[in-house]
Amino acid sequence: MFREYVALKPEELPRSYYNVLADIPFKLDPPLDPETQEPMSPEKLLRIFPEQLLEQEMSTERYIKIPEPVLREYAVYRPTPLIRAKFLEEYLGTRTKIYYKYEGTSPTGSHKVNTALAQAYYNKISGTKTLVTETGAGQWGSALSYAGAKFGLDVKVFMVKVSYNQKPFRKTLMNIFGGSVVPSPSKLTNFGKNYSDEHPGTLGIAISEAIEVVLSEEGTKYALGSVLNHVLLHQTVIGLEIKEQLKKIGVIPDMVVACHGGGSNFGGTILPFIPDVLQGRKIDLVAVEPESCPSLTKGEFRYDYGDTAGLTPLMKMYTLGKDFVPPAIHAGGLRYHGAAPIVSKLYHERLIKAASVTQEEVFEAAKLFAKLEGIIPAPESAHAIAYVVKKAKDNGKETIVFTLSGHGHFDLNAYQNN
Amino acid sequence: MFREYVALKPEELPRSYYNVLADIPFKLDPPLDPETQEPMSPEKLLRIFPEQLLEQEMSTERYIKIPEPVLREYAVYRPTPLIRAKFLEEYLGTRTKIYYKYEGTSPTGSHKVNTALAQAYYNKISGTKTLVTETGAGQWGSALSYAGAKFGLDVKVFMVKVSYNQKPFRKTLMNIFGGSVVPSPSKLTNFGKNYSDEHPGTLGIAISEAIEVVLSEEGTKYALGSVLNHVLLHQTVIGLEIKEQLKKIGVIPDMVVACHGGGSNFGGTILPFIPDVLQGRKIDLVAVEPESCPSLTKGEFRYDYGDTAGLTPLMKMYTLGKDFVPPAIHAGGLRYHGAAPIVSKLYHERLIKAASVTQEEVFEAAKLFAKLEGIIPAPESAHAIAYVVKKAKDNGKETIVFTLSGHGHFDLNAYQNN
Repeated sequence: MFREYVALKPEELPRSYYNVLADIPFKLDPPLDPETQEPMSPEKLLRIFPEQLLEQEMSTERYIKIPEPVLREYAVYRPTPLIRAKFLEEYLGTRTKIYYKYEGTSPTGSHKVNTALAQAYYNKISGTKTLVTETGAGQWGSALSYAGAKFGLDVKVFMVKVSYNQKPFRKTLMNIFGGSVVPSPSKLTNFGKNYSDEHPGTLGIAISEAIEVVLSEEGTKYALGSVLNHVLLHQTVIGLEIKEQLKKIGVIPDMVVACHGGGSNFGGTILPFIPDVLQGRKIDLVAVEPESCPSLTKGEFRYDYGDTAGLTPLMKMYTLGKDFVPPAIHAGGLRYHGAAPIVSKLYHERLIKAASVTQEEVFEAAKLFAKLEGIIPAPESAHAIAYVVKKAKDNGKETIVFTLSGHGHFDLNAYQNN
Repeated sequence: MFREYVALKPEELPRSYYNVLADIPFKLDPPLDPETQEPMSPEKLLRIFPEQLLEQEMSTERYIKIPEPVLREYAVYRPTPLIRAKFLEEYLGTRTKIYYKYEGTSPTGSHKVNTALAQAYYNKISGTKTLVTETGAGQWGSALSYAGAKFGLDVKVFMVKVSYNQKPFRKTLMNIFGGSVVPSPSKLTNFGKNYSDEHPGTLGIAISEAIEVVLSEEGTKYALGSVLNHVLLHQTVIGLEIKEQLKKIGVIPDMVVACHGGGSNFGGTILPFIPDVLQGRKIDLVAVEPESCPSLTKGEFRYDYGDTAGLTPLMKMYTLGKDFVPPAIHAGGLRYHGAAPIVSKLYHERLIKAASVTQEEVFEAAKLFAKLEGIIPAPESAHAIAYVVKKAKDNGKETIVFTLSGHGHFDLNAYQNN
C-alpha cells in the first residue's frame, strides 16, 4: 500500500565527491587560451576562479573530501529521496520499474545548490568578497544567491532577459537571499552595450557580461553553474546517493536518465556509474536534451568558446556554435550552446547515450507526473520524464532511474503557456 | 554537525484520525439552522455534504480510521519531517530548542491536502460528481483541485478576487490539476451580482457563492478547507505525527505553536496534545493570528454565520462579524472572520492561548527563516515563526514546536511587496 521511498539519514551523506577523471582511460583535451589558442595557463584562470576550485578542475584524484562547513549546509536538504514512481508505472501499465531521485527539496528547488554551496565556501576561504554569475531560467542565480547568503558573500547575477521578463518571481527569490539581479544584455558592460534593448539575451552573452565585470573589479570572482569539471564534481553527490539508495533496496538499474543542458545534473547523476560501465556492466546512461537546443545529438565535437564574446577559454565539447540562439521556447533552461567537456568526451567515446524530446512531449509528461506523483516538475527535469515515459511504454528495460533535478514552482508561467 | 531531522517511515503514518470531542469535558454548542435558528437538521446538511463527512462532523469516537485509499495518497508526501531549527537557534543565541513540523512537502505545498484528499474520497464513494469550494490565498483551492484529480472529481473554485489578481500562478496551479477557477465576487451567482466589479472579495462572499451553486446543481457538493470539525479531524495527522516524532527523540515540548486562520492547521497541530493538557501537563498551545484579522484575540464568542450571505448554519465561535473585511494586506491567507468552533470552545475554556503578530514582524521572520533554514515559508506559516522568534529571544521555554504549514513558493508576490 505504501510507496517505496528510499531515505538516507543525514549521517549517510557522501563525505567525498567522486572524480571520474581518475577512472576514464583517456585524457580530456586541455582548455585553450582565447588569446593565444595555446593551453590555458592556471595563472590567468586565477583571475576568475579561486585556487581550490582550479585545483579541483584539474585534479585526477578519485575522491575529493567535502569540507565540513559544506556538509553541514548539505544537511539542510540532503540526502535527497529516491522514490518509486508507482502511480506513473500503474498509469502506463508498464513492467518497467521507475525510480526517481528528487533534487527539488533544496532551498531554491533544484540540484544547483549542490555546487553553489561548495563554490561559495571555497571563494569565502580564499578571500573573495563578491561572486558574479549569469543565469538562464534562474535556477543557478537563485542557488548562488542562497549560497552567498550562507557564506557571507555578495552575489551579482546577469539574468538572460527573456527569462527575466517571463519569471519575475525568480528575481524576488534571488532578492530574498540578498542577490542582486540585472537583465542581460545590460548597459553595465561594454559587451552588453553591443546589443539592442529588444535582444532576448542568451546564456553566452550573460557569461560574457559576468566575466567582463569580474576582470574589471577587485575581490570579485566568477561562478559557473554547469559545464566545468569542478561543477560536475560537486554534483556527483546526486549519483553517489543514488547508488547508496539502490544498494539499500538491492536494485541494479539497466538505465539511468537525466536531462542535459550544460551537463551538471546529467554528469552529477551518471558519473558515479561510469566505473560500472567500464567494468562491463550493461547500463544505458542517457542524456535527454530539447530538440530545439540539441548540443549532443546535433552538435559538433570541437573547440569552442563558453561564451559569446570569446572571453572564456576554448573548450573541446559538443557545441552548436557560440552564437547559437535557441528559439524563444518557454521551457527556460537547457538553452546552452555547448555540453560539458567531460560529458562531451564520454559521449564521443560512446560510454553514454543522448536523446532529444519535443517541448510538447515535455509538458505533457510534466502535467501527467504532477497529477500522478504529486510533484510539479521543473520544465528542464521534465525532459527526463518525457523520455522515461516513452521507454517505459516500450517495456524494454527492467529498471530505470532518473533524476528529477528540480520542482517547477517558479516556472508556472511556462505551464500556463504549454 | 548534521541537523536533527526526525523522519518517520511511510509505514509509520497514523492509521486513524484523533477526535478531540471524545476527550473534552464539555459539549460544543450545536450549529443552528439559518432559517429557524433551531439546531440544524442533518437532512438539510446532506444537501451540501456527503453522509460520511457529516457523521465525522458529529462523531464523538476517539479514533476514526483513515481509509486505505486515503492512506495510499497520504504516502505520496507523508509522514512529513520534524526538523530542529538549529541555524535559527544559533542566530538568535537562544537556549530554547526549536523544532518545526514541515507540511510544505505536500503536492500543493501546504497542509490543506490532508483534508482535501479525505473529503474528495468520501465524496467520490458517495456519488458526488463535482466539488465546489472557495479559496482565499489559493492554498485550499489548489489542494482540492489536486485531490479531485486523484479521485476523479470535477472541482470548481471561487477565489477571493484580490488574491486571484495578486497570485495568477495559483490559478495555473489549480488548472494543472484540472480545477476551474472563478474570481469572487462573480456574476455567476445571484449573491455575487450584489457586488461591484471593484469589490476585492472576502472568504465569506466566496463561501456564499459556492454554496449557492451547490444548492442549485445536482451531483454537486460543497467542500470547506477549515473551520468545521471534520476538517480539523483530518488535520490531526499533523499533531499525531509530531507526538510520534517527539517520542522518538525523547523530547517533551513546553510550547506548541501554529498560525491560525480558520483553525485547521492550528487544530490539526494541537488537538492531539489536548489529552496531555487535560491530564495536567504544562504545555502552552498557542494560536498565532494576524493583528489585522484577530478573530480569537479581539473577536466575540457568539453564534455567527460562516459566510456573508447567511446561507451557512450559524456556529458558536469567536468572530469579528460575518461582514468583517480585513484590510487588503498582502499576506493573503488568515483573512477569515471566524474561528473553528472547536478551537473557539477550547480557547473559551482556557485550554489554549492566542496571540497576534504584525505583518512587518511576519515578513522579517519569514526572510530570516528562509536564509537560515533554507525554506521559504508561506506568509501564513510565518506568523508562527514570528511568534516563536520572540519567545525564543525571551529564553522562557525549554522546547518549542511549531508547524510550518506550507512553503511560500506561490506567494513570492507578497515577498516582493514586504
